[in-house]
Amino acid sequence: MKPTYTIGLDYGTNSVRALIVDVRTGREVGTAVWEYAHGTHGVILTRDPNLARQHPADYLTGAEVTIKQALRQAKVKPAQIIGIGVDTTGSTPLPVDAAGRPLAFDKRFAKNPAALAWLWKDHTGVAAATEITTLAKQLRPHYLAKCGGTYSSEWFFSKILHCLRVAPEIFAAAHTWVECADWIPAVLTGTDAPDLLTVGVCAAGHKAMYNDDWGGYPDAEFLGTLHPKLGELRSRLRPKAQTIDRAVGQLTTEWAKRTGLPVGIPVAVGAFDAHLGGVGCGIAPGTLAKIIGTSTCDMMVAPVGTKLADIPGLCGIVNGSILPGYYGLEAGQSAVGDIFNWFVNYIKAGSHAELTTGAAKLKPGESGLLALDWNNGNRTILVDQRLTGLLLGQTLYTTPAEIYRALIEATAFGALTIINRFEEYGVQVEQIVNCGGIAEKNPVVMQIYADVTGRPMKISRSAQTCALGAAIAGAVVAGAYPHYAAAQKAMTGVKAKVFKPDATAHAVYRELYALYRQLHDGFGTNSWNGNMYNVMKRLIEIRSQARN
Amino acid sequence: MKPTYTIGLDYGTNSVRALIVDVRTGREVGTAVWEYAHGTHGVILTRDPNLARQHPADYLTGAEVTIKQALRQAKVKPAQIIGIGVDTTGSTPLPVDAAGRPLAFDKRFAKNPAALAWLWKDHTGVAAATEITTLAKQLRPHYLAKCGGTYSSEWFFSKILHCLRVAPEIFAAAHTWVECADWIPAVLTGTDAPDLLTVGVCAAGHKAMYNDDWGGYPDAEFLGTLHPKLGELRSRLRPKAQTIDRAVGQLTTEWAKRTGLPVGIPVAVGAFDAHLGGVGCGIAPGTLAKIIGTSTCDMMVAPVGTKLADIPGLCGIVNGSILPGYYGLEAGQSAVGDIFNWFVNYIKAGSHAELTTGAAKLKPGESGLLALDWNNGNRTILVDQRLTGLLLGQTLYTTPAEIYRALIEATAFGALTIINRFEEYGVQVEQIVNCGGIAEKNPVVMQIYADVTGRPMKISRSAQTCALGAAIAGAVVAGAYPHYAAAQKAMTGVKAKVFKPDATAHAVYRELYALYRQLHDGFGTNSWNGNMYNVMKRLIEIRSQARN
Repeated sequence: MKPTYTIGLDYGTNSVRALIVDVRTGREVGTAVWEYAHGTHGVILTRDPNLARQHPADYLTGAEVTIKQALRQAKVKPAQIIGIGVDTTGSTPLPVDAAGRPLAFDKRFAKNPAALAWLWKDHTGVAAATEITTLAKQLRPHYLAKCGGTYSSEWFFSKILHCLRVAPEIFAAAHTWVECADWIPAVLTGTDAPDLLTVGVCAAGHKAMYNDDWGGYPDAEFLGTLHPKLGELRSRLRPKAQTIDRAVGQLTTEWAKRTGLPVGIPVAVGAFDAHLGGVGCGIAPGTLAKIIGTSTCDMMVAPVGTKLADIPGLCGIVNGSILPGYYGLEAGQSAVGDIFNWFVNYIKAGSHAELTTGAAKLKPGESGLLALDWNNGNRTILVDQRLTGLLLGQTLYTTPAEIYRALIEATAFGALTIINRFEEYGVQVEQIVNCGGIAEKNPVVMQIYADVTGRPMKISRSAQTCALGAAIAGAVVAGAYPHYAAAQKAMTGVKAKVFKPDATAHAVYRELYALYRQLHDGFGTNSWNGNMYNVMKRLIEIRSQARN
Repeated sequence: MKPTYTIGLDYGTNSVRALIVDVRTGREVGTAVWEYAHGTHGVILTRDPNLARQHPADYLTGAEVTIKQALRQAKVKPAQIIGIGVDTTGSTPLPVDAAGRPLAFDKRFAKNPAALAWLWKDHTGVAAATEITTLAKQLRPHYLAKCGGTYSSEWFFSKILHCLRVAPEIFAAAHTWVECADWIPAVLTGTDAPDLLTVGVCAAGHKAMYNDDWGGYPDAEFLGTLHPKLGELRSRLRPKAQTIDRAVGQLTTEWAKRTGLPVGIPVAVGAFDAHLGGVGCGIAPGTLAKIIGTSTCDMMVAPVGTKLADIPGLCGIVNGSILPGYYGLEAGQSAVGDIFNWFVNYIKAGSHAELTTGAAKLKPGESGLLALDWNNGNRTILVDQRLTGLLLGQTLYTTPAEIYRALIEATAFGALTIINRFEEYGVQVEQIVNCGGIAEKNPVVMQIYADVTGRPMKISRSAQTCALGAAIAGAVVAGAYPHYAAAQKAMTGVKAKVFKPDATAHAVYRELYALYRQLHDGFGTNSWNGNMYNVMKRLIEIRSQARN
């Protein structure tokens, strides 16, 4: 039998990647990346530090450029490509007109940032998120119970309601709003007209309070209480969301021409990068898949039918959002790689390589520094974007490498807080599989994560695990495997090198984590009570021990 | 009458300066600076971040080099030089042998850092300082009352007791310990033999619990309780400390030869840089003289006889320490310029000039950042070296200029805390005269200080105010003026440019100061109680207001 291949299209914050994968083994035979043309590394910014947008034109150019280039590199015949899967960032909704065309393509709105795609990390909707949370607490507490108890400013309706308040002309011009994860498969298959659109349960369930138990999206009465026009929008949202074992349609002639792929191959229902990253990590009950990029997503699954508590601070517990037949549990950190990138690109105190080398030479506690990983707010467990970074312990001799290590450690403490939260609510973490550029390329970070958490860190063998997950979706919808478990067994795996925790380092980190948790609770909650007098003094003691 | 001149010798942390001043007007006719040859910018460091030493050879080379060079520049006849004053950092004690020779010059101890001069900012004696404070609270509470209630690790006996514990061979080899401020005048006048030595009341009173009311230095019984050998040292300390209207002796033939100055001119009793800086600022009752350098000293005077409360957190209230006939009140911040230098030299995120330009473009509150000025601990009002820096409010877009401004603001908040403390205890601050390189050269810093404190900032007209104060001392001991008031009236003044507080900026800073004070008390005291939940949120609100 001739080998067959699928394509995973992976839309990140700064760039898009196409990956061509051998359906039998998961072997990656071709890949290409294209950095978005608009904005700063693909993100359109203004003076408002909460604002982060993207231009949807980049999504289309990116698909064409990367698929063609990956095909050339792979040296496979186009006819051997049997399916496509797509993952994207999210919640990244874009306003579209009655034909499904993004308003960003409308000349009238060429200079209006509200017409763009509202990138996941856009936090302009902070006030709207508070409004939604407050109202849901009063009227529809069950909506919140499945998304951690707080509706985030990063999510679908916060962004739309904020647009309605600050850019009503865009809201009025929009027939509806489409998640990037749904829009791209729709365009590729010509199903982007609003009444043809397929929405994935991943985006709808985790970011838009969609749940089949209450009839899909939040009801029109609830939305209408927030704003009458938001209530009216409800009827223009789709009635039923789908899982990734479904195809949204077949590749159009136009897109076959633009990419060189065969007409008519199936395109799977889209999902978020982290969810398909979980698939690419081989996610199954007991496995925590950590997708470490600019932010992290921490994904787990539990079979449908499991008695699951509502877990405060999680970004959602959604039937079928990762794997069909399983609840998908999503937690995450609002910034990880983004914090390291901030330090390198904005503070300009050295390259990642230099700083990593310097950080590797330090022992736990040796710098005397302690940081909070909140430069972009805290997703899990506080669900609060109105938080900021914190660094303490600086002397007159503190070096950039010491700060860089403290920032890495801060993200590890944040990761541990998430693991603890899963287990506190009965979801045991039996193994951890990491993926993403940082997991792949930075052994210093992975060793610190092992030492801080006291748990082995495994690394997905794919360097492009999210794209691999998307390619697996392409394989499933093409009928190459009967279900995801079979596809994952054949197409995923972990590297031989496992980062094991060092007991001595872990002992120091247990002490540092107690101090991190004190700062976390003191600055992040209003229920903590006490003073911080011990923090600097204990750090100095730990520093002295580490140096002797 | 022919013009006459005096020389001020000003020993700083990194370099020594000689300044030649016209006795009639204070006009500066020649100056020279020499950076110490040893260590990093003159400071000898090890892995222990608390350790900071200097080599006394640098003090002697520095005197010779700078006096000769300043004379050449001034183009005055050596015979016109009528006196010398000396100021130094402190407490910077050095161990000397029975002949008064520094142990650092003894080959046996060439590699022993304990034989060097223990620079003011050496904090290795933290544990010793706690021991001294604890014992004094029990046995001699009046010792502490005059030095703010806590004996600092920066001070004379903390350093000596720490040496006794960690380098007993140096303690044993030392006949006695001499403050740098006393040692240099003694060497210049050949009075450095221990039984000829003159000690100044400035160093003794502020750093060594010297007070004529209890018979000079702490008694042998008290010191002997700390350690028997420290008790024995008491008899080898001088019985009586002197004010700066006294000469310690006349310039020796050797030093006249080395420098080109006339033999026999008087050298005034030495004092700390900040105290003679106060003199150079024209200090008088109601005037706060801020000497802003690597650290700051905040100096005030009150006539002897004034009913003065003991002020908690001050570094001392000492009869005659600044001006004869007045109590000298010393407060200060452990690091100011040093924090800015740390950011530039260690973090390397830009030059002072670039960062100052960037900081000047920002409005108060616009960055959302808030910092504590504790990278080197807190001298006033907490008297606690076991504190460290803190920065919070960072986003993913925070720039170095924003951090630099936050660090400047942190030092301004620290300055305001000191002003408040003086006034809480009845010492009114009627005008503020700043001096030092930062006051002289950085209008951005001075405007922020005015805006934060809500008070006008005047700047000493001399660019070398400490050295000017030393030269004034030289003029007084040479008999050119009958007392300091007359000499100050003739030889000091302020610049025409006064930095006046902006009401709008001050209003924002009042809000930021409340948050600073919350962090200050929460991290710096164990009596504060509550949580920090409001801090990041309030900063975000203030940031939003500033940006709109």
